Amino acid sequence: MNQLDPSSQKQKWTNSVNASKTTQCQDQPTSTALAGIKVLDLSRFIAGPHCGMLLGDLGADVIKIETVGKGENTRTFSPQLDGESIYTMVFNRNKRSLTLNFRDAEGQDILRDLVAKADVVIENFVPGTLEKMGCGWETVSKINPRLIMTRISGFGSTGPYSNRPCFDVVAQAMTGLMDITGSDDGSPMMAGTFVVDYATALYAAVGTLAAVHHRERTGQGQVVEATLLSSAMSMLMTAIPDQLLFGRTMTRMGNRDRFNAPGNTFRTSEGHWILVITVGDEKFRELANCMGRLDLLDDPLFSTNAARMKNVDAIEGIVQAWASNRTTAEILPLLESRGIPCTKVATVADLVKDPHVIARKQILELPQASGPVPVQGFAIELGETPMNLRYPCPSIGEHCSEVLTEWLGLDEERIASLRERRIV
Amino acid sequence: MNQLDPSSQKQKWTNSVNASKTTQCQDQPTSTALAGIKVLDLSRFIAGPHCGMLLGDLGADVIKIETVGKGENTRTFSPQLDGESIYTMVFNRNKRSLTLNFRDAEGQDILRDLVAKADVVIENFVPGTLEKMGCGWETVSKINPRLIMTRISGFGSTGPYSNRPCFDVVAQAMTGLMDITGSDDGSPMMAGTFVVDYATALYAAVGTLAAVHHRERTGQGQVVEATLLSSAMSMLMTAIPDQLLFGRTMTRMGNRDRFNAPGNTFRTSEGHWILVITVGDEKFRELANCMGRLDLLDDPLFSTNAARMKNVDAIEGIVQAWASNRTTAEILPLLESRGIPCTKVATVADLVKDPHVIARKQILELPQASGPVPVQGFAIELGETPMNLRYPCPSIGEHCSEVLTEWLGLDEERIASLRERRIV
Repeated sequence: MNQLDPSSQKQKWTNSVNASKTTQCQDQPTSTALAGIKVLDLSRFIAGPHCGMLLGDLGADVIKIETVGKGENTRTFSPQLDGESIYTMVFNRNKRSLTLNFRDAEGQDILRDLVAKADVVIENFVPGTLEKMGCGWETVSKINPRLIMTRISGFGSTGPYSNRPCFDVVAQAMTGLMDITGSDDGSPMMAGTFVVDYATALYAAVGTLAAVHHRERTGQGQVVEATLLSSAMSMLMTAIPDQLLFGRTMTRMGNRDRFNAPGNTFRTSEGHWILVITVGDEKFRELANCMGRLDLLDDPLFSTNAARMKNVDAIEGIVQAWASNRTTAEILPLLESRGIPCTKVATVADLVKDPHVIARKQILELPQASGPVPVQGFAIELGETPMNLRYPCPSIGEHCSEVLTEWLGLDEERIASLRERRIV
Repeated sequence: MNQLDPSSQKQKWTNSVNASKTTQCQDQPTSTALAGIKVLDLSRFIAGPHCGMLLGDLGADVIKIETVGKGENTRTFSPQLDGESIYTMVFNRNKRSLTLNFRDAEGQDILRDLVAKADVVIENFVPGTLEKMGCGWETVSKINPRLIMTRISGFGSTGPYSNRPCFDVVAQAMTGLMDITGSDDGSPMMAGTFVVDYATALYAAVGTLAAVHHRERTGQGQVVEATLLSSAMSMLMTAIPDQLLFGRTMTRMGNRDRFNAPGNTFRTSEGHWILVITVGDEKFRELANCMGRLDLLDDPLFSTNAARMKNVDAIEGIVQAWASNRTTAEILPLLESRGIPCTKVATVADLVKDPHVIARKQILELPQASGPVPVQGFAIELGETPMNLRYPCPSIGEHCSEVLTEWLGLDEERIASLRERRIV
């Protein structure tokens, strides 16, 4: 984790992507879908913060509550830019930050006052922590019966593992996601990113918004629970019925498609990896055409997807032999012209230069205090209520005064006293 | 893809998991979060259907619109049970099925009549298809200004690749997700499941529910767009700033954690893979304690996470040497007792027997016509409006009469005529 000189790197970034292609904070946000929804985000790491960020992207007023002084756990994580964690930045745009000493009785009072004004609380503490802070569901639902409390954990509040710590990769390992990833002759492999954390964040957001909808109609708040384990399991395709009905244990098979043939990565003459996938016989006909092998369509070994699945080594061998004698630049435009899904296996270095990514403004620039930080943009587009960047990732406690005044009507004197005693 | 005799397999499943541990369709569903929300799900494959299913799980009335006769594209996919696709089942519970001939003018009239009554339409056709069917946004938003139209595609409606076909793995390959997955000395690797399809489904659901919220307050419907490309990009952690600010291209590093050391898979004395991860110095202290190596805490090579990251081969070597001489049954309870996240790298065969999975009822039984089919359960829990199973995956066109009567008030005679002419 070498740290390069940030100033020279900022220059590089400015040169590499035209600034007009990125989005800056807007002074006058347009109407947003969740305008007026107040969210207290007490969560740490990824699943909770990503959920909160998404609600913020959609226009909710999201207050990130952090520990006085040191801030959220990830604030020290690499990579850093001028002492600010980029790791924290990618999960915490469109939030304001308020620090609060949860161990202090007055801090707990303030938390309860904030909860009383909130529509949604997001938390992923170890089970029982909120209760110790006097903010368990029994307590806060009496103060604010309209509250949605979104609880994110590894295993949920019940069951034998409910008190175990969990991280994304633990859930990947426990559910078989690792066992089904990797080469068929290699070891179980984790996905290269936090797929379970991201999925859990999204399930939590879906549950939260469904609960908000119910609340708007009935006035009734509730607890929403999302877990790493159930989110990971939800992504198992047909693995569970395969196992329980047929005794077939789904496992890893490299880059080979599980349901269609041919579908795999292949090497071109210059040694690039390309991905080619045919879904259905129609696309296979197009591929056979591209390869000048219309004979395959009449060959009983390859004429149907079911036949090709049985003879998958043979059909992939034919595609590989064809690709080996051609360059990436020859193959991809040809397949694309025939509507066959294909691509070079890109690096992140390729991605940031991709003309489609640039045209769609999928890289967003966060105007952080330490300089502009390019990050992945919004994953959803809403035609009438577009997502926009109202805040970069806040510094620790940046909005204490603002939030305490706006939400609770505290005056300067009171806030100064709280600060002095390190309660905020 | 061998097909075993289903009847013997059903027996096996019934034996292997106690039926009382699974959920059956409930005759009297409790209050659900999205009760009263009407959804037309025109989508195919995974991302769209999973989004629709989730809204159905949350209580929406979801009508799956399928091609007359052959049904949705996945209906022929393996695995199958008595001629029904289990692949279709896992993405289509809690929906009713209506077949409709989109190419027929009367079929298109019926579709527009349904759209006029719908709150949400989900579609993932090739761009321009709905327009050809007389159901483009310009048309239907005039008929039903409160409509949310959720459009799911590979690349979105604008940009140079907007007309290209895309599948989950293409998005994994294009965005670098494949390049960052796999062994550091091996080739780029796809995740073993459709992580991008699932993420896109979830982003689409989040966007849809945010748009419903806006609509409830303003009466204004809108188009929501989710894409495989942007959903895949959203899961890139710090890869984009790493690339653009520091010129560091994130790539694959096997099962090694990117941010903490030690965090990796290790082999136990009997050759099992286990996953152990320490996040922060506190957990490392516990691990050192378990290994009887408190000396490591004072060793400048290993005393901080930053130091361990620099000497990651050495610290992982120490853990591996320790694990090599112990069984899984010795290691895991010891680490668990110290609160260190760890697990055996499980197969799906292990997962379905996991006591926590069973205690949490995370396997749900779909009462399909061909017999009970166990699938992954609900990923979210809502305390006051629990998700429940109202319908298994429907057979093709199973609810034609029911839906045409309920939604459009058509009489038996009209429905019979539509059937006869194969319009429904």
